[in-house]
Amino acid sequence: MEKTTAILLLSCPDRKGIVAGVSKFVSEHNGNILDAAQYSVQPENMLFMRVEWDMEGFTLSRDDLKEAIAPLAGQFSMKWKIHFSDYLPKMAIFVSRHVYCFHDLILRHQMGEFRAEIPLVISNHLDMKPLADHFGLTYRYYPITTENKAGQEKKEIAELEKEGVDLIVLARYMQILSGEFVRRYHGKIINIHHSFLPAFAGSSPYQQAYDRGVKIIGATSHYVTEMLDEGPIITQDVIKITHKDSVDNMKLKGKDLERIVLAKAVRLHLEHRILVHGSKTIIFD
Amino acid sequence: MEKTTAILLLSCPDRKGIVAGVSKFVSEHNGNILDAAQYSVQPENMLFMRVEWDMEGFTLSRDDLKEAIAPLAGQFSMKWKIHFSDYLPKMAIFVSRHVYCFHDLILRHQMGEFRAEIPLVISNHLDMKPLADHFGLTYRYYPITTENKAGQEKKEIAELEKEGVDLIVLARYMQILSGEFVRRYHGKIINIHHSFLPAFAGSSPYQQAYDRGVKIIGATSHYVTEMLDEGPIITQDVIKITHKDSVDNMKLKGKDLERIVLAKAVRLHLEHRILVHGSKTIIFD
Amino acid sequence: MEKTTAILLLSCPDRKGIVAGVSKFVSEHNGNILDAAQYSVQPENMLFMRVEWDMEGFTLSRDDLKEAIAPLAGQFSMKWKIHFSDYLPKMAIFVSRHVYCFHDLILRHQMGEFRAEIPLVISNHLDMKPLADHFGLTYRYYPITTENKAGQEKKEIAELEKEGVDLIVLARYMQILSGEFVRRYHGKIINIHHSFLPAFAGSSPYQQAYDRGVKIIGATSHYVTEMLDEGPIITQDVIKITHKDSVDNMKLKGKDLERIVLAKAVRLHLEHRILVHGSKTIIFD
Amino acid sequence: MEKTTAILLLSCPDRKGIVAGVSKFVSEHNGNILDAAQYSVQPENMLFMRVEWDMEGFTLSRDDLKEAIAPLAGQFSMKWKIHFSDYLPKMAIFVSRHVYCFHDLILRHQMGEFRAEIPLVISNHLDMKPLADHFGLTYRYYPITTENKAGQEKKEIAELEKEGVDLIVLARYMQILSGEFVRRYHGKIINIHHSFLPAFAGSSPYQQAYDRGVKIIGATSHYVTEMLDEGPIITQDVIKITHKDSVDNMKLKGKDLERIVLAKAVRLHLEHRILVHGSKTIIFD
Repeated sequence: MEKTTAILLLSCPDRKGIVAGVSKFVSEHNGNILDAAQYSVQPENMLFMRVEWDMEGFTLSRDDLKEAIAPLAGQFSMKWKIHFSDYLPKMAIFVSRHVYCFHDLILRHQMGEFRAEIPLVISNHLDMKPLADHFGLTYRYYPITTENKAGQEKKEIAELEKEGVDLIVLARYMQILSGEFVRRYHGKIINIHHSFLPAFAGSSPYQQAYDRGVKIIGATSHYVTEMLDEGPIITQDVIKITHKDSVDNMKLKGKDLERIVLAKAVRLHLEHRILVHGSKTIIFD
Repeated sequence: MEKTTAILLLSCPDRKGIVAGVSKFVSEHNGNILDAAQYSVQPENMLFMRVEWDMEGFTLSRDDLKEAIAPLAGQFSMKWKIHFSDYLPKMAIFVSRHVYCFHDLILRHQMGEFRAEIPLVISNHLDMKPLADHFGLTYRYYPITTENKAGQEKKEIAELEKEGVDLIVLARYMQILSGEFVRRYHGKIINIHHSFLPAFAGSSPYQQAYDRGVKIIGATSHYVTEMLDEGPIITQDVIKITHKDSVDNMKLKGKDLERIVLAKAVRLHLEHRILVHGSKTIIFD
Repeated sequence: MEKTTAILLLSCPDRKGIVAGVSKFVSEHNGNILDAAQYSVQPENMLFMRVEWDMEGFTLSRDDLKEAIAPLAGQFSMKWKIHFSDYLPKMAIFVSRHVYCFHDLILRHQMGEFRAEIPLVISNHLDMKPLADHFGLTYRYYPITTENKAGQEKKEIAELEKEGVDLIVLARYMQILSGEFVRRYHGKIINIHHSFLPAFAGSSPYQQAYDRGVKIIGATSHYVTEMLDEGPIITQDVIKITHKDSVDNMKLKGKDLERIVLAKAVRLHLEHRILVHGSKTIIFD
Repeated sequence: MEKTTAILLLSCPDRKGIVAGVSKFVSEHNGNILDAAQYSVQPENMLFMRVEWDMEGFTLSRDDLKEAIAPLAGQFSMKWKIHFSDYLPKMAIFVSRHVYCFHDLILRHQMGEFRAEIPLVISNHLDMKPLADHFGLTYRYYPITTENKAGQEKKEIAELEKEGVDLIVLARYMQILSGEFVRRYHGKIINIHHSFLPAFAGSSPYQQAYDRGVKIIGATSHYVTEMLDEGPIITQDVIKITHKDSVDNMKLKGKDLERIVLAKAVRLHLEHRILVHGSKTIIFD
């Protein structure tokens, strides 16, 4: 039996007494802190903190908790969010025609690597439908053209709302989401880019890498913002290559990277281990 | 100007209120916690913690601090140690005839990578004396034979005591220290072994690696215990090799690993980021 | 359109004229060498060589080729084998209850990463049958007990013979094959072990790694020999861990390693890039 | 006693018979090929080749060799160069005020890692002179201003010519060499840049990396061309970082990378393992 835990994520101007204040709050209500981490960044003088405690024996109900924490939060001008580990976040996967990231996510989900439900798969192609069907996933097909894009996104959003989706994972989704879409799901869309950003942003990064003659290729998962490929980076990994690696060979090697890097980002997000600070992420793992 | 900080390392049976108790203690005396990390291990149910706070404005003197913390420590049955960042630990280097780890440590020290003094270099050979001289280091020569070993170690210990040495770094020192020596400096001797332990313990690890045909070689830094090559591991790193790598080539590649792995372990120790739990280390970095 | 190529693998005592002899042979019959690599090992004084050439315009038929090469092979006392890239090797997968390596192999096969057919999946459990069915793979179920082992292996061998299987991949197959079986498929069985061998051979390597407190875990693919976990290593990879990683967490991280390491070994074998020399592999990639 | 070897590097349009022609040439004159590697790049249809053979018993003198190879080279329109392993290339080091790459190169040289002489160290500062003196190296001081740059470079070139320098290593030399200088030593100047190029070209790459919030930093060694940071890449390596790494901490971690990456590039060059093809390198290691 896994413990049910509460996870408090907060940020505020750094000053004396915050760590003590938060841990005292948990302790006073009989919570046992399982993990706590904080990070103070200069010159912004901002503190970021993640505290996780066991809910067993905790004397506040979930509703009361939110009220009870308000004075502390007010005192230190905290922005905060609380999550409970027994809630399964709802994750939608957007996919186009590349199978490997999509298949990998499903397989990991099936093996229990993600604490999440997958109520929805959205695609602008039909290629992945048989696979989704095999795994019993709901598959919605929204082909995109320049003309119908705005309308299709509206339908997609309606589906996402209906299912109460908390996280959108772009598993090599080959469409650029509109600014409106991105703003609506700010901090809730994770993309995988097949280069070690900021190198080789944009299209055909492996071709770019080949043309430049680099000795290392990479993959980057990041939150999607309105600026393409410039959102806060969550995880990156690389692999060595040589002059012998053709573009096709890079794609082959890159697939392994992309899968691992994307899966890791999804896991970190689902475990509430990421705080965004401007264009960067703070990752408490 | 760097801040002067206090670093509290502690371990105790895990139960509710420890994190809160410690952070309240710091906060009550007007300390600003800069970094705090804890780790709870099951089934032992032990908590390990490292807390670092700014000494500026802290209302307890260093002597008073030790007294003031006693009730808290007693309440939770803590084992604890406190360090202050303005004390420069005294580090002795033991070396034989291999220059690279020794030279690397000196160079890093000179570049300010280590918060430490090096009052003493001890060797069973004279080879490194010119280098020590060039860097103005005190070099003591104690050749070791089966017959004189016990006596020479006594002299070495006398030197170490005289200089108040806090940490002994074996920079490819090719002598096995006696059990008595090791016990006296328990948790204070760091060695570098040129394999990814537990593979290829003992002598000639690169030859062993060659004979086995591995595709990866490594290096391991660890605290020295009476059981050769079995002390708690601090850091490890590896590098890929191929069938083309001769034993000499492995040695060449391994040198880079050994230097980096040893230097990292020394830095972690000097920054008081390591807690030893049985045969393992907990590293708060 | 991919080129059809011939791949000659050979080993012989090293002396002058071998490289020249082989390349002259190819050239005389109007073959264009696309890739050639050799490796000479001392003190054994053995030469290992892999030569690949374009079959387009090559003036010898496949049957004639084998005859025509005989004098050269005799002159230098070569052991040699020739492969043609338009033959698809037949690969059988042995699996028990762990899905991830099996699923990964199938997915890679489907994406065209392996030049091979998969005529047969053999298992001592029924768990993976639905997955095999979904991908249209023939699944044979041979439960193993101490009593029936010899008999079941005979049936397995009959199936393997019937299908003309060239390579057996143990995708976390949790049975030890008999010496007779292993000898019959000498150099044709690839296993994945979830540690960086020779560390943590045998069972429960992640538990062993946890108990030892290593900072790196690994995976090793190797040819199966009668000595468990001691066959020639093909590929290895590692990942860093910390004290925070539980055994379960290691298993999770290790899965990614195991998949990549096994897939790479299979690809190298299928591309005829591996020569075995005693307990080691020579890999021309 | 190490063997004396000949190393032939060549490039030419790819067609049948080149490998055979070259190996026959070596074999006819009683040379034993120790290592041979080739690489054919499409769609340029260019072949690059490196052949190394034992000079013992080789029937051509060095002078005759150059004449004897001419017909073969003519037949295939080869560009070629030949090196002999008993010639020690002359390597000049350019350095400014950062000690670590410079010191590392000297130490490696002293340990025998480089087959080279270091007849000259050139600097625009005096900081490194004591170190050069300690190691008995000739140190030339040429302070650079906008006004005197052209004149100082002339003097530097005169020194380099006088010493017959074959390779210039920029060990964190903080001056941009003029186009004239770079053209004169085309393919003979190796630089170390402290980022994984093409990301973070130009100045302050660690600050750029910090600002972008990447999770990996790198180092790149490359040949210097007139386009700053755009020359052919020789080696790259990376290290993982987290949000906790300040710019200073990145610099610290990066130092290890820079040293290893630069040393590896120097070694590859000195062993004649690099061929340049346009903006890329082909590395036969």
